[in-house]
Amino acid sequence: MQLADLSWEQCAEYLARDNRIILPLGATEQHGRHLGLGADFLIAQELARRIGAQTNVLVAPTLNYGMSHFHLEFPGTVSLAPTTLSAVLQDIFQSLYRHGFRRVFVVNGHGGNHPSLQSAANVIQNQFPDLRVKFFEWWLDGEITRLVDETLGTQQGTHASNHETALMLAVAPQSVHTARIAKRDAPVLPAREFDSPARFREKFPDGVMGLDPSPATVELGERILEKSAALGILEMENW
Amino acid sequence: MQLADLSWEQCAEYLARDNRIILPLGATEQHGRHLGLGADFLIAQELARRIGAQTNVLVAPTLNYGMSHFHLEFPGTVSLAPTTLSAVLQDIFQSLYRHGFRRVFVVNGHGGNHPSLQSAANVIQNQFPDLRVKFFEWWLDGEITRLVDETLGTQQGTHASNHETALMLAVAPQSVHTARIAKRDAPVLPAREFDSPARFREKFPDGVMGLDPSPATVELGERILEKSAALGILEMENW
Amino acid sequence: MQLADLSWEQCAEYLARDNRIILPLGATEQHGRHLGLGADFLIAQELARRIGAQTNVLVAPTLNYGMSHFHLEFPGTVSLAPTTLSAVLQDIFQSLYRHGFRRVFVVNGHGGNHPSLQSAANVIQNQFPDLRVKFFEWWLDGEITRLVDETLGTQQGTHASNHETALMLAVAPQSVHTARIAKRDAPVLPAREFDSPARFREKFPDGVMGLDPSPATVELGERILEKSAALGILEMENW
Amino acid sequence: MQLADLSWEQCAEYLARDNRIILPLGATEQHGRHLGLGADFLIAQELARRIGAQTNVLVAPTLNYGMSHFHLEFPGTVSLAPTTLSAVLQDIFQSLYRHGFRRVFVVNGHGGNHPSLQSAANVIQNQFPDLRVKFFEWWLDGEITRLVDETLGTQQGTHASNHETALMLAVAPQSVHTARIAKRDAPVLPAREFDSPARFREKFPDGVMGLDPSPATVELGERILEKSAALGILEMENW
Amino acid sequence: MQLADLSWEQCAEYLARDNRIILPLGATEQHGRHLGLGADFLIAQELARRIGAQTNVLVAPTLNYGMSHFHLEFPGTVSLAPTTLSAVLQDIFQSLYRHGFRRVFVVNGHGGNHPSLQSAANVIQNQFPDLRVKFFEWWLDGEITRLVDETLGTQQGTHASNHETALMLAVAPQSVHTARIAKRDAPVLPAREFDSPARFREKFPDGVMGLDPSPATVELGERILEKSAALGILEMENW
Amino acid sequence: MQLADLSWEQCAEYLARDNRIILPLGATEQHGRHLGLGADFLIAQELARRIGAQTNVLVAPTLNYGMSHFHLEFPGTVSLAPTTLSAVLQDIFQSLYRHGFRRVFVVNGHGGNHPSLQSAANVIQNQFPDLRVKFFEWWLDGEITRLVDETLGTQQGTHASNHETALMLAVAPQSVHTARIAKRDAPVLPAREFDSPARFREKFPDGVMGLDPSPATVELGERILEKSAALGILEMENW
Repeated sequence: MQLADLSWEQCAEYLARDNRIILPLGATEQHGRHLGLGADFLIAQELARRIGAQTNVLVAPTLNYGMSHFHLEFPGTVSLAPTTLSAVLQDIFQSLYRHGFRRVFVVNGHGGNHPSLQSAANVIQNQFPDLRVKFFEWWLDGEITRLVDETLGTQQGTHASNHETALMLAVAPQSVHTARIAKRDAPVLPAREFDSPARFREKFPDGVMGLDPSPATVELGERILEKSAALGILEMENW
Repeated sequence: MQLADLSWEQCAEYLARDNRIILPLGATEQHGRHLGLGADFLIAQELARRIGAQTNVLVAPTLNYGMSHFHLEFPGTVSLAPTTLSAVLQDIFQSLYRHGFRRVFVVNGHGGNHPSLQSAANVIQNQFPDLRVKFFEWWLDGEITRLVDETLGTQQGTHASNHETALMLAVAPQSVHTARIAKRDAPVLPAREFDSPARFREKFPDGVMGLDPSPATVELGERILEKSAALGILEMENW
Repeated sequence: MQLADLSWEQCAEYLARDNRIILPLGATEQHGRHLGLGADFLIAQELARRIGAQTNVLVAPTLNYGMSHFHLEFPGTVSLAPTTLSAVLQDIFQSLYRHGFRRVFVVNGHGGNHPSLQSAANVIQNQFPDLRVKFFEWWLDGEITRLVDETLGTQQGTHASNHETALMLAVAPQSVHTARIAKRDAPVLPAREFDSPARFREKFPDGVMGLDPSPATVELGERILEKSAALGILEMENW
Repeated sequence: MQLADLSWEQCAEYLARDNRIILPLGATEQHGRHLGLGADFLIAQELARRIGAQTNVLVAPTLNYGMSHFHLEFPGTVSLAPTTLSAVLQDIFQSLYRHGFRRVFVVNGHGGNHPSLQSAANVIQNQFPDLRVKFFEWWLDGEITRLVDETLGTQQGTHASNHETALMLAVAPQSVHTARIAKRDAPVLPAREFDSPARFREKFPDGVMGLDPSPATVELGERILEKSAALGILEMENW
Repeated sequence: MQLADLSWEQCAEYLARDNRIILPLGATEQHGRHLGLGADFLIAQELARRIGAQTNVLVAPTLNYGMSHFHLEFPGTVSLAPTTLSAVLQDIFQSLYRHGFRRVFVVNGHGGNHPSLQSAANVIQNQFPDLRVKFFEWWLDGEITRLVDETLGTQQGTHASNHETALMLAVAPQSVHTARIAKRDAPVLPAREFDSPARFREKFPDGVMGLDPSPATVELGERILEKSAALGILEMENW
Repeated sequence: MQLADLSWEQCAEYLARDNRIILPLGATEQHGRHLGLGADFLIAQELARRIGAQTNVLVAPTLNYGMSHFHLEFPGTVSLAPTTLSAVLQDIFQSLYRHGFRRVFVVNGHGGNHPSLQSAANVIQNQFPDLRVKFFEWWLDGEITRLVDETLGTQQGTHASNHETALMLAVAPQSVHTARIAKRDAPVLPAREFDSPARFREKFPDGVMGLDPSPATVELGERILEKSAALGILEMENW
């Protein structure tokens, strides 16, 4: 059930029986030489759709732009400033609260959005103490890590690496340009330093952080999606 | 060609030959008892897609949220504050400019976005004098008005009335809930007064401004789309 | 009756019998080689004065600065950023509301202020649902257009062209420097593109948009003033 | 010479020979039961006019609204938030700088504007090191104090008290409602505590701070104006 | 009693018997070639400590950064923008108010903070009418001036001059680098002009405003501290 | 070496040989019934001092206030809004950059500051590509976890639990009120939900997250400090 397809009257009917909503957050940012710039919002949207379909919870329209400052040296990346993204999220939370939504399940497809999301939640929950905001980020769960390790032998990739490539093969094959895969590993450094866009590009000239993404398969992508959606469904049902 | 599906490398290749991009703006707001809340972004997205397809100009991801304060009394409406929307647009323009885009063709699906768009353009163009921003709003053109008049006998509807319903029949039939159409005309007052959300709902209890939307047909919708896209293509080609 | 001349006690007495106030908005921006930079606020102030005099509605002090970014390449133009102007207007509305004013009739002398005005009204009316804000812009009315057409044969001027020159001859003759009139027509393009200050000046090197302003007369100016004030009085009385 | 009356071409001619401008700042705020709410901007405007006339320095349009939060419990007071006023001043300074003005002489008619003015100057001068901003506040000068003491025997008034009443008799007699003068002294406390609007009104129920304003005369007002303008002219000439 | 050392339970116990708190404000800015950059916060902290110790009023942690834009040309100066400092103070006031504090005694060690402090107080007191904010600035009191005059023969120093040097000898001798004292007087101009960082440094190349600071002694510093604390205690007790 | 104790001249001398600086960030927030509200800034300050002492890197004054919204239901907590804290950090980074500092080592004592720190770093590094910002948070390191586990048998505490209590015994014994320790374990939930202040207090009525803090000892605190400082020194030396 997509909020976009419901009329206000139907939305009012939904609110009479449930106060939850799923909000998919994405980004428009580089994902290597081989993945489309929409990867993060396409994945978040698909996960949100699956969780919503199974739990009968309404899914809000996807936010297609996020906070991607460190990717700005790569053509096509479009980034909101952290304060802008926080303002957007606060406005969305406030509108939802006004109508009676009380639990927002944020399916976040991009790690760079997290600080702005947390800031927005801190502010809005100080204002509306009974508004609950959960966040769901597929890469955080140990089960996903194990699944990739079992399948590929190892899992060290983060951005645009093997698991994101697998996911995209399952979600949006038209956005995976296999011939352009840069077949080389990139370091995944412990992130104790914030990088400027210029230094980021210098460190990761292909835009990939982590392992060579070529072993990724559509089957692995589908399995990650399934497992991740299952985790999300569980979290939603136990809420 | 969707920016979402291109990798940064492909985007760089595009920028080597063109500096235009299409940006569809929408809203998540009530459109009567019968149309989905996503009407504005669904229509803008479809128009952008058609104009892009014909002109080979890249289409950026759609902004699914807009400035819809006056609709906030209707459940499901999600509105960004005017300053938030302006900040989002400035950030988007700035990112695009950084990569070399110089002409942004904004396909705006929602009139309420216009002040924030104009404000953002005024600020960003003061900063980057060679950035050109055009806006395209399908309802502004006399040809569209004439087309609807010829077809339906009269055309006085604005929000969620006959022509938007026709467009939605063509663009997103799953979002048109025909059985819920409130078959009564609403006044279209000369807009010399800004309305609070409460007064707006009082004036337009169904959420429709203008004529009874029931005569709308998918054929009319398709013809509006076609004509409007043709106008957009013309503007783009003469740029 | 000017708010500036009333003491707080007299203002309290007025509020006991009326909750309306007139707010004139202007700008300090170029108006061709021949008109003073204060044209917009001088005209708005005079219209506000006439409407107030006839309706016994209080007139607030004029805001002499507005949003004039596109004129910034012309010496003397002083422009507030759109967000600044919106903040100013929100603060003014909030102060007026606190004292009991409930209907604000904005006599706006400058089109560039409109987006910020609309944004401010949208925000403040969401906060105070019973605050009503009307806007009055003299150039919007068909009767004015007809009057100028009848008098000058044609009316295609907008900024600093024949009708603004006529108005200034009637309102502030010391600000009309007839000898400097640049006697040539400038195009009035359909405004589908926002212009940077630099492009604006390139398109309109004299600063005039539209017809050669030299046929303007003080009589025409006086007639526009009269007719426009009459329209404003009517709107006020029917409120 | 008023900027409002000059065309952009005349302003360009002025800038070829001088880079100074006078900016009058006022407020719309209560001034006792007897003085018009415009007192501060009317006085600043008149002083600016006199200083400009004598020195041939251009005078910008007056800012009629200022920071008057502590007077908000008195009907008719319209106050900008401190950040709003600072933003307005920064925008004005920035526009003036762009055209070539390098010395701005701020004739401030209202003490409450000072913090925002100082903040704006600190920020803008950090950005444009060669922009010079002077402030002129008539009540700061010892000569004015002495003049009032000599004339009235004592001078302890500040807001809306004897000297402001005298000034208004000279500047805007239509704004002085003598019959309403509240003939009682109010304390002028050493201002070591910031007052909320409510506490301010409790302390000063008439809105006057200081001595009974009834001894004020138009002659005294004219002498203060003259002396103050002379001081301003001196400051300007020695700049 | 330092808030930093109390647990929330102890703070709740304090609030049951008192609603006052002392807030020391400082700055990190140049103080001549001889004084440490922390002079302003070290002095404010010590004064706050003494006043708190005598009156049993709780002392909040010191704000070590302030508004020091005009000193930015001197290495080591760290300045908050005026709006940032105002926001910090508003947030602090708001938190304190929430817990039940109603009287905040601001011991301000740096004049440049005053505009932001006043702005913050104006805004917050408009929001919470029963929140009282006093400010205490040691250099404002005539008794301190007299004390220095009696001791040193004259007192004309302001920033980093004789009395601040004396205070630092008493408060933080490790921050006084006597050998580096620049033994020359600097003018103390009547401050009618705001200075850019560059002009400030040009006028005061040592960073000292006023008299040669070398005659300062630790005894004088201790006497100023004592007298100033006594004044603060008096103000606190009469509140 | 503390920046506070250096004069600008000494700071300039330091900058001639090094471009690093340590910035300690803290908070003023509840830490259970037994720890002082200043725990976070006291610990950060001590760690910064040790790292600075060993590496000869300058230490900036501590920021004593942070983002502590979720603790606001506990008396004494003083919280900056996330945008305020980001603005403060951006201003600090900008000032430091201006003087020539190029590497800022942020010793952050409070997890709640992280989103604002990351946001500020993202913005400022986009502006100044050669500014490097590292963050050091003592609780992130596996060695610290192991050390506590070895000593106490288990380590599951986070906020105000055993290890923070141990640290405070070593750093600021006057802030540890042993008699008030609430001897009971609190859950440490996987933090997938942002909590409003009210829900946070409901979940953690003592303010402690994690294990009963009573087994903490000053020896353990001193060992954590030592090991953590050693890690920080290593990071600094390898930079």
